Amino acid sequence: MISPEPASDRLFDAVASRGPVCVGLDTAVEYLPPRVLAARSEPAAALLAYNLALVEATADFAACFKVQIAYYEELGPAGLEVYAKTLQFIRSRGCIAVADIKRGDIADTAARYAKAHLEGAFEADFVTLNPYMGLDSLEPWLALAERRGKGLFALVRTSNPGMRDFEGLELAAGGRVYDEVARRVAALSGRGRGERGYGALGAVVGCTERAEAASLRATLSGVFVLIPGYGTQGGAAEDAALLLEGGNGGVVNASRSILKAWSAAGLDPATTGLEEAAQAARAATETMSAALLAAVARSKATP
Amino acid sequence: MISPEPASDRLFDAVASRGPVCVGLDTAVEYLPPRVLAARSEPAAALLAYNLALVEATADFAACFKVQIAYYEELGPAGLEVYAKTLQFIRSRGCIAVADIKRGDIADTAARYAKAHLEGAFEADFVTLNPYMGLDSLEPWLALAERRGKGLFALVRTSNPGMRDFEGLELAAGGRVYDEVARRVAALSGRGRGERGYGALGAVVGCTERAEAASLRATLSGVFVLIPGYGTQGGAAEDAALLLEGGNGGVVNASRSILKAWSAAGLDPATTGLEEAAQAARAATETMSAALLAAVARSKATP
Repeated sequence: MISPEPASDRLFDAVASRGPVCVGLDTAVEYLPPRVLAARSEPAAALLAYNLALVEATADFAACFKVQIAYYEELGPAGLEVYAKTLQFIRSRGCIAVADIKRGDIADTAARYAKAHLEGAFEADFVTLNPYMGLDSLEPWLALAERRGKGLFALVRTSNPGMRDFEGLELAAGGRVYDEVARRVAALSGRGRGERGYGALGAVVGCTERAEAASLRATLSGVFVLIPGYGTQGGAAEDAALLLEGGNGGVVNASRSILKAWSAAGLDPATTGLEEAAQAARAATETMSAALLAAVARSKATP
Repeated sequence: MISPEPASDRLFDAVASRGPVCVGLDTAVEYLPPRVLAARSEPAAALLAYNLALVEATADFAACFKVQIAYYEELGPAGLEVYAKTLQFIRSRGCIAVADIKRGDIADTAARYAKAHLEGAFEADFVTLNPYMGLDSLEPWLALAERRGKGLFALVRTSNPGMRDFEGLELAAGGRVYDEVARRVAALSGRGRGERGYGALGAVVGCTERAEAASLRATLSGVFVLIPGYGTQGGAAEDAALLLEGGNGGVVNASRSILKAWSAAGLDPATTGLEEAAQAARAATETMSAALLAAVARSKATP
């Protein structure tokens, strides 16, 4: 059997050629122009059409697409059909699909989840995972990811205020809970390592202040990071650039600012169609990509 | 609007009348007698028939049923239809359904998940949650649970070996991560409190050694607990009884020992049908219930 190309290599090359934007398809029906929604008999059909149009329109400026399963789970089995079809479409276009599922469970249960999301009906290229239950909750995912050339992002330090409650607790041995999670993730970075130097296990690290970002990045050397919190959660291009390594080794997610770009651009809700909304999303993605690449260039100029 | 009866009151009454067994429907096709599987054209149809037969057969000795979504997610949208129908059947029989989903996310995403599992196609009476991201990941669930008379179990201390990696880390302020999670959960126990004294937010606490169980139980006074790890993970009736409060305030889950009771009872795989498998599950549930009630009686006799 020929080993599949590691997902981390494909993601690295995508960032190198198209920049580090991760387009988030956290698609809710209320983000769609009313005309787009009204033109379909079922909300689920409108969501699918919107996702596909946005993938087509933004692919030139996107390293990958992150699909947040909660928005589809809300609609029951019909919503999960849309979720599956969105992933299939992204992958059929040669793009990279990140499934934002934050699953976390143990033993046989973890293996079932891994099969569902790394090779089953919901197959993605990367998934996000919640590591609270420990390394044995990651192991079945890692084993399958290595075998199938997939990638994982374990939650390390998120960007929500509640991060302080448990992730940010100070440890008796020094550092915080997320520092220890980062260390354990980094210790596994050799597993499934590709030619670009990144392993199968990555980390979710939210934008934070400068010193903390540098410290976490040092711990996570050679670990691919998924960076949430850009824009709506207060993170800026400079903060995100700090979590990259020379402009690669990470992707920066934006969801609502792209999904609702038509609204931010001042388009008329009553008349905006699918194509105009998609073009607004394309412009927002291009703008974000340019802002990130400029911040990376500045960070290289003034180390 | 008349407030719905809190799920914690219904669960308390169920434990009082039928004992603390939580029957786990972590149903995999390989747990079914081959004849039952072969009689259906689709594996998903066999899973559903098996679940329904086991609910009917064990309901007399079960406080509630816990459905592990990973086993259904593995089968894609068709599997999630079985998951939804299993929950609907449990609830239509007047029984209590616990959705073992271990979701954990923030803000709007958490609210979407909450709608999916507390009122949508996947409506359950209780769900399990992963609190790693902080209290703001629990809040949307708690708000909806209070409004709809639902219940939640946040992971506090699980029973897998990897529990030591992050849950078990020692804190600078004293105690371990799971002690702090337990304190924060207990601080919210007034939210949605019912007439039996338990709130909408409960905790998952695995069987552990005696001193630790007593300490965690003291922190979690008045908090309903879901206890995994009975049987297959080494926990015994005595350990589980320690985590109850006078024989109530908690349920003890067993999955494989009930699902595969037909096999443990020595029934012939080639000839065992649905009814025999269901009766073996009933007997296993009755035996487990009796063992737990005996352990509770002993713990009351020798405090």
